[in-house]
Amino acid sequence: MNIKINDNFNNISESYLFSDINKRVNEYKKNHPNAKIIRLGIGDVTLPLPKLIVDALVKASNEMGVKDTFRGYPPEYGYDFIKEAVVKYYKNINVSLDLDSVFISDGAKSDLGNIVDILGDNDIYIPNPVYPVYVDSNLMSGRKIHYLNGNEANNFLPLPSGLDNNSKVIYLCSPNNPTGATYNYDELKSWVDYAYKTGSLIIFDSAYEAFITDDSPRSIYKIEHAKEVAIEVSSLSKMAGFTGVRCGFTIVPLELLAGGSSLNKLWKRRQATKFNGVSYPVQRAAEAALSEEGVKESQKNLAIYKKNTKMLCELFDEKGIWYSGGVNSPYVWIKCPNGMKSFEFFDYLLDKANIVGTPGVGFGENGEGYFRLTSFASNEDTKEAVERLRKIL
Amino acid sequence: MNIKINDNFNNISESYLFSDINKRVNEYKKNHPNAKIIRLGIGDVTLPLPKLIVDALVKASNEMGVKDTFRGYPPEYGYDFIKEAVVKYYKNINVSLDLDSVFISDGAKSDLGNIVDILGDNDIYIPNPVYPVYVDSNLMSGRKIHYLNGNEANNFLPLPSGLDNNSKVIYLCSPNNPTGATYNYDELKSWVDYAYKTGSLIIFDSAYEAFITDDSPRSIYKIEHAKEVAIEVSSLSKMAGFTGVRCGFTIVPLELLAGGSSLNKLWKRRQATKFNGVSYPVQRAAEAALSEEGVKESQKNLAIYKKNTKMLCELFDEKGIWYSGGVNSPYVWIKCPNGMKSFEFFDYLLDKANIVGTPGVGFGENGEGYFRLTSFASNEDTKEAVERLRKIL
Repeated sequence: MNIKINDNFNNISESYLFSDINKRVNEYKKNHPNAKIIRLGIGDVTLPLPKLIVDALVKASNEMGVKDTFRGYPPEYGYDFIKEAVVKYYKNINVSLDLDSVFISDGAKSDLGNIVDILGDNDIYIPNPVYPVYVDSNLMSGRKIHYLNGNEANNFLPLPSGLDNNSKVIYLCSPNNPTGATYNYDELKSWVDYAYKTGSLIIFDSAYEAFITDDSPRSIYKIEHAKEVAIEVSSLSKMAGFTGVRCGFTIVPLELLAGGSSLNKLWKRRQATKFNGVSYPVQRAAEAALSEEGVKESQKNLAIYKKNTKMLCELFDEKGIWYSGGVNSPYVWIKCPNGMKSFEFFDYLLDKANIVGTPGVGFGENGEGYFRLTSFASNEDTKEAVERLRKIL
Repeated sequence: MNIKINDNFNNISESYLFSDINKRVNEYKKNHPNAKIIRLGIGDVTLPLPKLIVDALVKASNEMGVKDTFRGYPPEYGYDFIKEAVVKYYKNINVSLDLDSVFISDGAKSDLGNIVDILGDNDIYIPNPVYPVYVDSNLMSGRKIHYLNGNEANNFLPLPSGLDNNSKVIYLCSPNNPTGATYNYDELKSWVDYAYKTGSLIIFDSAYEAFITDDSPRSIYKIEHAKEVAIEVSSLSKMAGFTGVRCGFTIVPLELLAGGSSLNKLWKRRQATKFNGVSYPVQRAAEAALSEEGVKESQKNLAIYKKNTKMLCELFDEKGIWYSGGVNSPYVWIKCPNGMKSFEFFDYLLDKANIVGTPGVGFGENGEGYFRLTSFASNEDTKEAVERLRKIL
């Protein structure tokens, strides 16, 4: 064909991180068939859904088989019952939201990727290291990316000091994937204040907010003026184990105005044109997950994961190994000992302790020399892993 | 804020079609509280899901509540079991597909909207009248649109004759929404031949293929060379009543090359970045729907809808009213009698027969003077509507 493709795709690199990891692990297994490998690289939940969520999914599925309760096209922005459940969920952390600011989606990744559709040619600021979707979706749409450097000195929590006063689009992820680092109130406020002063937009990814246990803000809207500067993208994936069920939500406040345009209206138009709403049974499952009882049940799963991060953190404290995360996050981000590079440490762990983790360099250049361990293995396996790590670190 | 928005949104008009219709109907009901209004404007299925599909949905939902069968993130392109079911579904109409050319989505609308992401700045050719997503998604990305005129003379099936030989991106929808008009083999072949000759890309929307009863092609890949020129977007929405369940599939053949780039690879990269796969229970329901037994069950529902289109077509035949569709489609597209404009006829039908349909002008300028009636009401209501229409037409 002679048609033109989107040339910006030439600027994004194929990600070989996880295929590279798999290759190394498979090679190792071939040479050490009896090795009992423990995977602490998993970025996906592993515990089954609580019963009340499954019950809601089953009930709604059955409704679809009966004439009087069958439902066709859902509203593009979500049924009121689930939008109301989101509003109530926020009310419990003392954030009040307009029902019309809530958009139900099939997951945070879709909305984080698609949000570029409503934006023009702005300077984009993205933390490094970070979840790769922000970078790739912006490169695909031909945007110029500037990195906000995360490092040991700033605890992998870059702040606005030193930035010019031009308006920009800023991505923030707190608690951060992969570093687990979480902005406290004052730090997040400095970002909101900066955006307010410079007329910038913050795209705030709060996918891990349910893991927060200290008093760090679980929503950017805890900060004054945030509704005038920030879109918040969240998800039930980690909060309620929905990675395979697929449901998220995005808040585009009515107060978000760029020039004369309402970003809420733009996103409405985008979603009405290119999206047809979330599966009805999934929306009922999400409603159950966001209910008081649902949150309580899901927190039991989170407590199991948290036990793992605690074991890992205690070991690194004992060994004097620098790390971020762990407290408000399923991730522990450690500095590779003895100046090892990320992949050197990967091979070392695999060989000496039969443990698989994720090389930090896979999340951006600033991740070189760091390593991500996750809490999604079982308590038993994590305990065993900690024992092995104790011997070799 | 001072950030730039996507100015192309200024070029798309808000659609007031359905809110306008609702306003007129509500007004009428207020003044005629006893009117028994029959809705033949519905573009959504109304019959419940067959039992075996509900059973699959329920079974998979229950699996999500058990540790050993719980599933996290699905593959972005769909599980193999459902991709294989799609390949088999096509095999039954004698089309052979590569497993890697199949992408499972949350619905045709998403893929039809998002496909622009992988394309550069091409001339876009879109039939008029047609499903509005093609136009709006291209306007949003700043593309220049040329219309392919559908009209009574060409049976609302525009052909390539008269077009220049430059490469272009061409949208085709067959059976068409809203006209129900369906390309036969020779007509569709003329499009594939034209695209092959000019190096053009066809985006073929086959969402209504399951309604085809004559020998019109149910897939563009029935035509030689189509895999070198066409992406096919399809859906279980109408085929299996999945409008509320949300599942579709898109075929991007490995043979589709533009310059040195594989469109299959570009779409893979797009979906891996901005999509996270379809809900696991939904994929199991879709697998059931695509099975031989599932297709048989869904065809029973389609037969009920087809009974309605038959009743409508027989009336229009009897009255000598020009129409397209009806045979291979849930839609009957009629020429408004006595030279009435679309909205005039809307008001006439509402007032004289208490019937609600959809003004053709809502699907593009070429729809002015035409009107869409659908088959998704009950057999009883449609029969009653036909009686009423018989008296006033």
